[in-house]
Amino acid sequence: MRIVEIREATASIGSDIRNAYIDFSKMDVSICAVVTDVIRDGAPVVGYGFNSNGRYAQGGLLRHRFLPRLEAADPARLVTEAGDNLDPFRIWDAMMTNEKPGGHGERSVAVGVVDMAVWDAVAKIAGQPLHRYLAERYGTGTPAADVSVYAAGGYYYPDKDNTALQDEMRGYLGMGYDAVKMKIGGAPLADDIARIEAVLEVVGDGARLAVDANGRFDLDTALAYGEALAPYGLKWYEEAGDPLDYALQAELSKAYAPPMATGENLFSMQDVRNLLRHGGMRPDRDILQMDPVLSYGLVEYMRMLEVLREHGWSPARCVPHGGHQFALSIAAGLGLGGNESYPGIFQPFGGFADSTPVAGGRVALPEIPGIGFEDKAGLMALFRRELG
Amino acid sequence: MRIVEIREATASIGSDIRNAYIDFSKMDVSICAVVTDVIRDGAPVVGYGFNSNGRYAQGGLLRHRFLPRLEAADPARLVTEAGDNLDPFRIWDAMMTNEKPGGHGERSVAVGVVDMAVWDAVAKIAGQPLHRYLAERYGTGTPAADVSVYAAGGYYYPDKDNTALQDEMRGYLGMGYDAVKMKIGGAPLADDIARIEAVLEVVGDGARLAVDANGRFDLDTALAYGEALAPYGLKWYEEAGDPLDYALQAELSKAYAPPMATGENLFSMQDVRNLLRHGGMRPDRDILQMDPVLSYGLVEYMRMLEVLREHGWSPARCVPHGGHQFALSIAAGLGLGGNESYPGIFQPFGGFADSTPVAGGRVALPEIPGIGFEDKAGLMALFRRELG
Repeated sequence: MRIVEIREATASIGSDIRNAYIDFSKMDVSICAVVTDVIRDGAPVVGYGFNSNGRYAQGGLLRHRFLPRLEAADPARLVTEAGDNLDPFRIWDAMMTNEKPGGHGERSVAVGVVDMAVWDAVAKIAGQPLHRYLAERYGTGTPAADVSVYAAGGYYYPDKDNTALQDEMRGYLGMGYDAVKMKIGGAPLADDIARIEAVLEVVGDGARLAVDANGRFDLDTALAYGEALAPYGLKWYEEAGDPLDYALQAELSKAYAPPMATGENLFSMQDVRNLLRHGGMRPDRDILQMDPVLSYGLVEYMRMLEVLREHGWSPARCVPHGGHQFALSIAAGLGLGGNESYPGIFQPFGGFADSTPVAGGRVALPEIPGIGFEDKAGLMALFRRELG
Repeated sequence: MRIVEIREATASIGSDIRNAYIDFSKMDVSICAVVTDVIRDGAPVVGYGFNSNGRYAQGGLLRHRFLPRLEAADPARLVTEAGDNLDPFRIWDAMMTNEKPGGHGERSVAVGVVDMAVWDAVAKIAGQPLHRYLAERYGTGTPAADVSVYAAGGYYYPDKDNTALQDEMRGYLGMGYDAVKMKIGGAPLADDIARIEAVLEVVGDGARLAVDANGRFDLDTALAYGEALAPYGLKWYEEAGDPLDYALQAELSKAYAPPMATGENLFSMQDVRNLLRHGGMRPDRDILQMDPVLSYGLVEYMRMLEVLREHGWSPARCVPHGGHQFALSIAAGLGLGGNESYPGIFQPFGGFADSTPVAGGRVALPEIPGIGFEDKAGLMALFRRELG
């Protein structure tokens, strides 16, 4: 058993949205296909991968370092001891040969793209849906039947009043979501509070609304927002300060009692460990949003989950960034607390299987081998067109 | 005044050395030329840049994101308010457009390569050596005439006894160095102590010998080495644990009184701030080794120096990783404590001007415009051959 070929390409996921930091119109992702010599249903098993939005395609790093290392590796070193499947951990080690510690960005995305495709192939070779494969091997034995998801959106509408924002949120409820997330920090505090109150008119309970500052606040602004937000009892207050400003997060934790969330811009076990050690995050209520693709893939994400356990955190406190089937499979398989979703954007990468619409704020997973891409026609069409 | 063109290429700096983490035989770097329409001495001013060893070429990121952003930028937005020179800070902002916070690796190298070339061009346009330009604009007014350097080497010699290591160190003393650095952690502690004692026979005082673990120790090993090293009063004990394991560094600081050093694998102001906040580093004795090229260039390095000041640190506690003329110019211009040097390796990028050999453990800087590349024939030949 061996990897026959790894193909990669770049695809656009540009959208016309803009958060507090960046314009997504030029956003792209890497896609890849890991082609194996294993035959299932009369055809070679192929695993597919792509990276989550926000950090760009990584074709340069893939072609320059990570794919050549896999091509140069002895194929026997990339499979399990028993030789019955690819080994994602050994493949990870081969990719990271001759890489120095520290500096966790960009390469973490490149490695994550390949890691996703490897896990897709591994589950297909095992003949299992990935969420079931993970639950049996690394989880409690039984995967969750469905996963809580929330609709992330709520960007600013220049030159429009808050009815446009309300219409957007009403749309999410109509799609089957029962919780939503909106941006804050792109307008004065009073205007943001008015936006929040407008959305609460639509969604009702504050526990159904999360707010996201995208890391733009300094400590004083974070505290001022915290004071204004606290009475609403929101679902969470996300990424108030720079993702690496653990001291800001720790100070804010002393002042703001309701749940907070962060972690989507931490791309290694070491960075997450620092958040747990120094960020004052509270394991009884806060949410950790690390993205298993942007941060070196599921192999590294499992290391993060281990560090969480060592610090008294349950995997149920994790709700990954990403909004795609891979994160959903991990959530169902390893007992995470939920998954992000971006209704209608980042297509065809965003969203879940065609056969499993969101209902009651939850989404189920198809019982087909792998991550479930074969039940997402638009994505499979793109993979086949771009990766042959 | 404008940038006419930016050319980039990849060059090998492979060497047959191997540290605790990586094999350097496949190491490469990006090189670039920033061509301007400013004429000096009858020819257009061209600034040159490259990245320091250890983190690979970044042509993919340069071509995919950073150079297209500069090409797309209004040229008037890349020069000073007065229009009399390129503005490295505005150029930096243009390159970092649409980049999210966090994830400081790889892109920090790509940006650093261009930043070096921009500063070379800026000093040439100003008609000054960069160290003098920096001292007048951002330093105390007068640059240092020369900078303390130390010889970094002392790798393992498989199958040889410690006389080979002693010969290497004797060679550095013969070249004009008075301090050296050697690797530890690649052999059992007792063997490393024997290696250290062998080198001390050559260099004499422990204050002339630094040791570098390249981030490989866990806390127990770091403490065991600390206990064994303390009696020698070494120049410093470098990167005992993972570069992001601030808690390990803080614990070690309580147990090990002589100087310690770290920072070469921290690539942003935010990461350095975390080291200062959480790492227990001591501003009266410890050394910070951030590399101004690998970490988004001098623009970001100045932000690091500002954070250092806020935490009570002098720039004199900084001795950058890198071993090249750019770091040396910054050291002389901004009052850093010294500079790394890798005698004979990473050529032609490593080392200093042809006209300024090391003497008495120090190296002077040529009084020619820019970083001084035009006084390093091998490097200029490579730039001209590869970048036209």
